[in-house]
Amino acid sequence: MTEGSGGRIGVGMVGHAFMGAVHSHAWRSAHRFFDLPVTPELAVLGGRDLARTKAAAAKFGWTSVQTDWRELVNSPGVQIVDVCTPGDSHAEIAIAALEAGKHVLCEKPLANTVDEAEAMTAAAEAAKERGVRSMVAFNYRRVPAIAYARKLIEAGRLGEIRHVRALYLQDWLTDADAPMTWRLRKDKAGSGSLGDLGAHIVDATQYLVGDLLTGVSALTKTFVGKRPVEGGSGDLDDVTVDDAAVFFGRFANGAIATYEATRFALGRKNGMSVEINGSLGSLRFGFEDMNELWFFDGAQPADEAGFRRILVTEPTHPYVGAWWPPGHLLGYEHTFTHEVVDFLRAIHDGVNPAPSFADGLQVQRVLGAVERSAENGSQWTEISA
Amino acid sequence: MTEGSGGRIGVGMVGHAFMGAVHSHAWRSAHRFFDLPVTPELAVLGGRDLARTKAAAAKFGWTSVQTDWRELVNSPGVQIVDVCTPGDSHAEIAIAALEAGKHVLCEKPLANTVDEAEAMTAAAEAAKERGVRSMVAFNYRRVPAIAYARKLIEAGRLGEIRHVRALYLQDWLTDADAPMTWRLRKDKAGSGSLGDLGAHIVDATQYLVGDLLTGVSALTKTFVGKRPVEGGSGDLDDVTVDDAAVFFGRFANGAIATYEATRFALGRKNGMSVEINGSLGSLRFGFEDMNELWFFDGAQPADEAGFRRILVTEPTHPYVGAWWPPGHLLGYEHTFTHEVVDFLRAIHDGVNPAPSFADGLQVQRVLGAVERSAENGSQWTEISA
Amino acid sequence: MTEGSGGRIGVGMVGHAFMGAVHSHAWRSAHRFFDLPVTPELAVLGGRDLARTKAAAAKFGWTSVQTDWRELVNSPGVQIVDVCTPGDSHAEIAIAALEAGKHVLCEKPLANTVDEAEAMTAAAEAAKERGVRSMVAFNYRRVPAIAYARKLIEAGRLGEIRHVRALYLQDWLTDADAPMTWRLRKDKAGSGSLGDLGAHIVDATQYLVGDLLTGVSALTKTFVGKRPVEGGSGDLDDVTVDDAAVFFGRFANGAIATYEATRFALGRKNGMSVEINGSLGSLRFGFEDMNELWFFDGAQPADEAGFRRILVTEPTHPYVGAWWPPGHLLGYEHTFTHEVVDFLRAIHDGVNPAPSFADGLQVQRVLGAVERSAENGSQWTEISA
Amino acid sequence: MTEGSGGRIGVGMVGHAFMGAVHSHAWRSAHRFFDLPVTPELAVLGGRDLARTKAAAAKFGWTSVQTDWRELVNSPGVQIVDVCTPGDSHAEIAIAALEAGKHVLCEKPLANTVDEAEAMTAAAEAAKERGVRSMVAFNYRRVPAIAYARKLIEAGRLGEIRHVRALYLQDWLTDADAPMTWRLRKDKAGSGSLGDLGAHIVDATQYLVGDLLTGVSALTKTFVGKRPVEGGSGDLDDVTVDDAAVFFGRFANGAIATYEATRFALGRKNGMSVEINGSLGSLRFGFEDMNELWFFDGAQPADEAGFRRILVTEPTHPYVGAWWPPGHLLGYEHTFTHEVVDFLRAIHDGVNPAPSFADGLQVQRVLGAVERSAENGSQWTEISA
Repeated sequence: MTEGSGGRIGVGMVGHAFMGAVHSHAWRSAHRFFDLPVTPELAVLGGRDLARTKAAAAKFGWTSVQTDWRELVNSPGVQIVDVCTPGDSHAEIAIAALEAGKHVLCEKPLANTVDEAEAMTAAAEAAKERGVRSMVAFNYRRVPAIAYARKLIEAGRLGEIRHVRALYLQDWLTDADAPMTWRLRKDKAGSGSLGDLGAHIVDATQYLVGDLLTGVSALTKTFVGKRPVEGGSGDLDDVTVDDAAVFFGRFANGAIATYEATRFALGRKNGMSVEINGSLGSLRFGFEDMNELWFFDGAQPADEAGFRRILVTEPTHPYVGAWWPPGHLLGYEHTFTHEVVDFLRAIHDGVNPAPSFADGLQVQRVLGAVERSAENGSQWTEISA
Repeated sequence: MTEGSGGRIGVGMVGHAFMGAVHSHAWRSAHRFFDLPVTPELAVLGGRDLARTKAAAAKFGWTSVQTDWRELVNSPGVQIVDVCTPGDSHAEIAIAALEAGKHVLCEKPLANTVDEAEAMTAAAEAAKERGVRSMVAFNYRRVPAIAYARKLIEAGRLGEIRHVRALYLQDWLTDADAPMTWRLRKDKAGSGSLGDLGAHIVDATQYLVGDLLTGVSALTKTFVGKRPVEGGSGDLDDVTVDDAAVFFGRFANGAIATYEATRFALGRKNGMSVEINGSLGSLRFGFEDMNELWFFDGAQPADEAGFRRILVTEPTHPYVGAWWPPGHLLGYEHTFTHEVVDFLRAIHDGVNPAPSFADGLQVQRVLGAVERSAENGSQWTEISA
Repeated sequence: MTEGSGGRIGVGMVGHAFMGAVHSHAWRSAHRFFDLPVTPELAVLGGRDLARTKAAAAKFGWTSVQTDWRELVNSPGVQIVDVCTPGDSHAEIAIAALEAGKHVLCEKPLANTVDEAEAMTAAAEAAKERGVRSMVAFNYRRVPAIAYARKLIEAGRLGEIRHVRALYLQDWLTDADAPMTWRLRKDKAGSGSLGDLGAHIVDATQYLVGDLLTGVSALTKTFVGKRPVEGGSGDLDDVTVDDAAVFFGRFANGAIATYEATRFALGRKNGMSVEINGSLGSLRFGFEDMNELWFFDGAQPADEAGFRRILVTEPTHPYVGAWWPPGHLLGYEHTFTHEVVDFLRAIHDGVNPAPSFADGLQVQRVLGAVERSAENGSQWTEISA
Repeated sequence: MTEGSGGRIGVGMVGHAFMGAVHSHAWRSAHRFFDLPVTPELAVLGGRDLARTKAAAAKFGWTSVQTDWRELVNSPGVQIVDVCTPGDSHAEIAIAALEAGKHVLCEKPLANTVDEAEAMTAAAEAAKERGVRSMVAFNYRRVPAIAYARKLIEAGRLGEIRHVRALYLQDWLTDADAPMTWRLRKDKAGSGSLGDLGAHIVDATQYLVGDLLTGVSALTKTFVGKRPVEGGSGDLDDVTVDDAAVFFGRFANGAIATYEATRFALGRKNGMSVEINGSLGSLRFGFEDMNELWFFDGAQPADEAGFRRILVTEPTHPYVGAWWPPGHLLGYEHTFTHEVVDFLRAIHDGVNPAPSFADGLQVQRVLGAVERSAENGSQWTEISA
């Protein structure tokens, strides 16, 4: 039993901020564009504050609300639990949901610590035996250009991978007077740019390369150590996470990789980018031009060769056939719709979707190694399995 | 009385192909992101074939269907009629709807001929007196970057406008074996690339400049005169519209403008672009990078000046505050959501939305002058008011 | 007899302003990078003012000076005459030089009028019979990216050509207070942006397409009719040439083409660009990125296709082997060095270099037709052979 | 005494391969474009093989040749010695020249080891006392866009610098069958991509930031350990240098920086690039578009802000006034001409040019620290003064 009656499946979502808004849109829209074997119902929205949760539910189209996430998780009308809270509550909610037999879609990073991520992965493995599915929401895998890049790499078009370079550059903390948020508190967010942004590029590059990082060397930095507390009292509070993290690593296959995650790259708004160089070809992607993939095909004669800008809007590209004609761009939220589509199909087909909690755990281990290296004079740090 | 009961307003939409899909999405989504004074209900979907219309209604989320558009137009549950059919039926449906007291959103081009457009405009003017609103769906005005460009021009940042150059380049007819479609038949489509693509750039440039074209000189071309009929019988049929149209014109304010619309620009998928040069500044926009606006500010010292790429994803940009954080891109369909938002607000506020049918008629007159000039050895042709 | 003694060939150049500086560099440098059968000697520099000509000769490396161009033309040490004066003296000097048996390299546009260009072409044809060579200096043909584009088109990679669009955008007259120059006087310059900029793109597109324009329709515009005279007296003088010219035309092969030349495109410094769309491929070039050529190869599968940025710096690209390793850019003046190389080789090999005076005349005829069309209500105007 | 007689100064250059060609051009051309207080004479070209040196001298315009560099260094007609040999002979030649009282321009990297660089710097410091000048040829400082970027940073337009990211990506070793060259032998080249490419970006970033790196953590990699020897015998030889080097570091001012140098980035031809993010502004530069500088000015209102593409071709930009009008691009070799101009002016003015040998030594120390860190498990390694 994985679906609700009549080809419909009830969703309960915990959290209704930024991620809640975009996940709601995905649950509302997936079946409007894709042929799905099962139709999601926005059954229960969970939040701590009743009034705000009710307002969000009305806005986003949820049928009912719950202020106690345990009730939501155990609600009979809920077959899928979608965890959109800050990282410190992921483990508790996701594990409870899996144990209650609910499929779980969990926002990234999977957890704030490797320990939590291990517990979640164990719960997911156990649930899998009972046909219960789980997935971590690394939505960049569902950018059509990235999914298509993976296909090219899988088909061997890049040959042996030598270089990976990934950036995730934002600038919203550049101003030293920008106020505190939960994202700058270690107890809530686990880490700063590392977990928020670095997690995305670690997952995306491991996915693209089809291989895992085995070790890293890292440096982290907090440029602004104290910031005004929320509310405007003028008091300062300590920033307890990194503002920026730079690291390099090795893939098991011999490729070397560089990473940078920061919220201090003035002028870069959501500058997630990846370049991969292989023996036969190279690929480049930048999220600020998310409908494009740049491919250098080394098989071409030298005088004809060049990075070509593939507009990933053809019906033959991943996910695109469900949308508009060539050249009509997709945006940020489409990646979540694609995520939901793949998750629903996996549930229906009885297969395990990717990225799994185990994939999320591996990312967490990389982030953990980054932190340890940074604490130990950038010393090379193996990523323990 | 302009709204349905309880803050809801019923929509009836005629047509359920490409435009129907994207309009449906807009009607479903507008109130999920924007604070609207009235909530649209997808009441009736109209189509000629019952089975296909039913399937589309289920897919897109419409409550009921109608195969007779007159019934739809007169349905008491319908307060807004959205016309998404080919151009040859726009006039009949829109006029009937206006006469029935329904607000009308009509796809572009407004009509296939100036005569039809004049009749529609007369009907719209008459309806306006009774508080009935109408709007033609030139959705490019609702690209945030274009709306923001208009604001810059309106504020005088470009100074006196001297040059306008606009392109709308597609390539889906490049292959001489691509089959016939209704878009290549004059009786259905009115014209070819001119009405389909040229209409958009004529409207967008008149909107941006804030002024009207007064005359044009034009050349049109049909590169492939016969194409295989739909269905694969191998028979050929005549292409009776232009494949490409190039023209230049003058604005009343003295600016000179060039235009090109084609479906034979191999490699260009939806290459709508505009550049405007004034005495104080210049702007560039290209739809394949629709979240960007390039601005050259002539007030800067020469050695610091350059076209700057404004990522139009800040909360202070038009429409953007309702969506995601900076750097998280919007896509094609958002323009329709914005259109619906503006239309619903205008209905509620009792004001006339733009672009009006009169604006659509003016575009039609430009297209008519283009056709006459092309038939008369490219002779300069005034645009009659 | 075409060369001087000892594998050296004497050059006499008339004019020493902008074009004189860049031609001097070419004459000095060609044999330093290319293997030439004959080495140019900078023998005589001609100019009207003795002191200024002497200063220029010292700066640019010329052995002697002449204030009477007739003396220069007839100097026994001069085998090549390089005409770098304003257009109004091209005919007189070039014809005299050809009649004196001197090879002639003449700056563009070939002349200020079709009549002059016809006389020059007749002189060149007559001289050809005596082994005397002539060439008009449309240097953009010698941009490696453009020469390479021509090779791709010649090899059929674009198939049947359908569209040509060419721009030459500058902004140095945007300011209405910019002073007069000889370039704004019809008697000196012949025309404004049309002859200065339009001539380049007409030649470049005819060269690239490998075919000729047969007719045009045009609009010209003078935005600023009076400007301060040189010297700062505050007096105003009439601008007697066009500030901008827009036109479209047909090629004999059926392609349609659009052109725009202006000095009022604020922010565009030397924005010469060309795009060509064929049935099998497309090409794009922009001079502000002169080392790049963008190629869309329609033979690629749709999901892999895209405009590719070919960095035209490979040793297999035209002219590039003489310079630096891949990725090390060439600049503006290299085009003149290439011009000189080709001219010297043609002289030595006894063949006629291109573009010939006849090619220059054809460009002049196009410009003439543009002017006539603009004077006649943009009426279609055939280009007489 | 620093100049030769009559405002001329004799140059002796050792080496006539790639660097020799481009330096020759600079010595030949500098006074043709810039007003110089002293004119260089290409007096003596040094090379080991007489016939090849003679051929090069004829090609490049040198008056005489020398196969013994000690003779060249001591030649009375030589006042400047230009060292263009591989790194293993820099120290010996440069020190001898300085001791002989000759001004020295030395190619980068300054030497193959820190020890050699220290000896050279000591010699340069001693020579300075006697009015003898020296300079290391980090030509990227003389790209107008980089020189202009330095001016912006110096003027405080970027505020406090937080991030530096620099890449130097080439691809000429991607093919595992590409043959050996001296550049792949440690005894000749010192290191691989690190000294060849990494040296450039270390110098360029220290120059731009106006501060020094204090420590690094690094990883180096040799992807292809054996390659066919030159000549085609089929024998393999060991590659004894790095193919790629990645490292990050800290600047004294608190900024963090990342670096990557590789010859295995397929599709990247001469991909030297730098981005710098400060508290008030950001800059981006890429050598494949060397005439452009991208500047994000944080002082602009958020909705108008964007990276602006400054075409660094205005007469007010560094070096540019000597060349062409705006929009007419400069190329790779111009950077060497600018270097020679600055060197000659410093000699004439009796000031010490930059980058000095001490600057070259500091770069060498960074490279040394990179190598030590890479050998020690990427451990953080301080850069000793």
